[in-house]
Amino acid sequence: MPTRVYLDWNATTPLRPEARAAMVAAYDLVGNPSSVHAEGREARRLVEEARAALAAAVGALPRNVIFTSAGTEANALALSPGLRGPWGGPVERLLVSAVEHASVLAGGRFPSDRIGQIRVTRSGVVDLDDLKAQLEDGPPALVSIMAANNETGALQPVAEAASVVHEAGGLLHVDAIQALGKIPFDINSVGADLATFSAHKIGGPKGVGALVMTEGIGGLEPVLRGGGQELSRRAGTENVAGIAGFGAAVKAALQALPEDVKRMATLRDRLENGLRDLAGATVFADDVERLPNTVLFTAAGLKAETAVIGFDLEGIAVSSGSACSSGKVQPSHVLSAMGYAPSVAQGAVRLSLGWSTEPDDINRALEAWRTLGNTLLKG
Amino acid sequence: MPTRVYLDWNATTPLRPEARAAMVAAYDLVGNPSSVHAEGREARRLVEEARAALAAAVGALPRNVIFTSAGTEANALALSPGLRGPWGGPVERLLVSAVEHASVLAGGRFPSDRIGQIRVTRSGVVDLDDLKAQLEDGPPALVSIMAANNETGALQPVAEAASVVHEAGGLLHVDAIQALGKIPFDINSVGADLATFSAHKIGGPKGVGALVMTEGIGGLEPVLRGGGQELSRRAGTENVAGIAGFGAAVKAALQALPEDVKRMATLRDRLENGLRDLAGATVFADDVERLPNTVLFTAAGLKAETAVIGFDLEGIAVSSGSACSSGKVQPSHVLSAMGYAPSVAQGAVRLSLGWSTEPDDINRALEAWRTLGNTLLKG
Repeated sequence: MPTRVYLDWNATTPLRPEARAAMVAAYDLVGNPSSVHAEGREARRLVEEARAALAAAVGALPRNVIFTSAGTEANALALSPGLRGPWGGPVERLLVSAVEHASVLAGGRFPSDRIGQIRVTRSGVVDLDDLKAQLEDGPPALVSIMAANNETGALQPVAEAASVVHEAGGLLHVDAIQALGKIPFDINSVGADLATFSAHKIGGPKGVGALVMTEGIGGLEPVLRGGGQELSRRAGTENVAGIAGFGAAVKAALQALPEDVKRMATLRDRLENGLRDLAGATVFADDVERLPNTVLFTAAGLKAETAVIGFDLEGIAVSSGSACSSGKVQPSHVLSAMGYAPSVAQGAVRLSLGWSTEPDDINRALEAWRTLGNTLLKG
Repeated sequence: MPTRVYLDWNATTPLRPEARAAMVAAYDLVGNPSSVHAEGREARRLVEEARAALAAAVGALPRNVIFTSAGTEANALALSPGLRGPWGGPVERLLVSAVEHASVLAGGRFPSDRIGQIRVTRSGVVDLDDLKAQLEDGPPALVSIMAANNETGALQPVAEAASVVHEAGGLLHVDAIQALGKIPFDINSVGADLATFSAHKIGGPKGVGALVMTEGIGGLEPVLRGGGQELSRRAGTENVAGIAGFGAAVKAALQALPEDVKRMATLRDRLENGLRDLAGATVFADDVERLPNTVLFTAAGLKAETAVIGFDLEGIAVSSGSACSSGKVQPSHVLSAMGYAPSVAQGAVRLSLGWSTEPDDINRALEAWRTLGNTLLKG
């Protein structure tokens, strides 16, 4: 039996060997990082090393890095009414782009009548004019715009948004979960006041995330309260092994980034061209800058659910959208925000590449399409 | 150099080999449990196996088990205004015992003016008369009482409390984090409507916890919202490896329980008798039923901070109280609730035993006391 081909890296990535090694090593440390004895101090050291690694990778100070249990919790923590910083606040309302992850659309601690949505273009890019208009019309806002969309891969104008937001006395949160390890990302060059990250999108373990803040952000209201962990901003015993794995993955991902970007983009182009030739595929957001690893496509008559199962039987793991939405029946809110009808969204298949994707994986995916295509497009 | 002696099992326990093996095996699974392809389904299977293991261990149905990032998050999720069940609710206020963990004292989603405290006796046991009186005086309450205290080890009258609470139309949450794996615990025999657990207290990984509910509890308000994970009660990609480790630890801990209880109690008694003989130690809560593994003691002139450092230098890891409180300067709220002066609390040292504690560990701890005692009691 041929090995499986994994082309669903935007849902989660295989563990990097560096992360795995760091986690297995952490298992020998018995201490709780809050304990003062030698065992506790050793566990603390691992957590602080990972904190320093993430801080260095994204241009933050270690004290402004808060580890959480996932990107979802990091987003919930970021979306905190009352945040204030050098450029704005205290924020009294939340503006989120219409293509944000479900955990951002949920709005954190903002009541639903204090949450507004910013429009996106047909290519899935945030409409800065709409952002400006909405900022003018109300009290200081926290604005949440992702660095890159998890379904289409479309990059968002976060640096331009930062200027607009700061000028209006607001603060900018950037969900950079899909960007880290796929494009360069630095909170300072973006001008992000808060940014969120997730370990399992860069080859770290599932169940670890982080909120990173720029210096001088105040008013963060914890989601989890109790113990004094994470400088009293996030209670709960730290996932020491997971955090160590996150730190190791960050280092490995950043080191490999220039090489990975080139390789993924080349393979992605081959995949897209193949799908266009073979299937007459339409690739969403292909007229704007995108992540080098993401292809969201459709073709006339394609049903995503059937395609995912068909590819799976051919040994290829692909997705019908965001894994986080599965179990929910409604079609992608991202394509809907881009102005596509539900019938189009139901035909969208996502293939995403990663650090170990090989040319042969692309060959196998295109081969599978050759086998399946006629059947899939019949229905 | 002699190996270290670890006597701080109530802060966190060394990873059980079964948990470690389950986690390392999980690292080979690349999928996101929410993905429909084979990789996703394999990850899903691990999560569901662990859910079934925990459910079976505590007498719940798998669908009523919600995995979280730690005991702290499980407690935050449990303390949800509006909960209702067969015996009571919707709850409008929260009553917590004065010796609860900091994450319970924080009160979850209850506003601070809707939180009351239940008194404990001088032995650190919840005063059921005070509970009754407080329940009579107001609308339906959620009551939160731990199964066993993390500092003194004192068992709480949770089954009696359940009757009292249900009679008054309220619901009972039991933080069973210190009880699991140390005494038998079943939500049905206790009559708990909700119960919380933590993996790292039973030899599983740090960073995984669970909320377990009895059948028929409604009105649970999620803490983390977004994706549809955990039947939409807890959003965020699952910590698959950690959850698998939790499941393996539960199985191993429950299987070893009868043997462990006997061994720990015997060693604990030897330790206590030794400390009484050598140091004239006073053991807190020693007139009530306690966990078989916990010794909180003091002696005239003892300063806990100095003792922890002294023991550490002798190669013995002990604690001055709950690890979760470290970094906070105030003395134990537990001893304070028991009516002890701050000066007494500052002299309290905790030694806690676990599944791999050996007779020699106890000998070494008592030897260390012989070496240190005179110095420690001078101050």
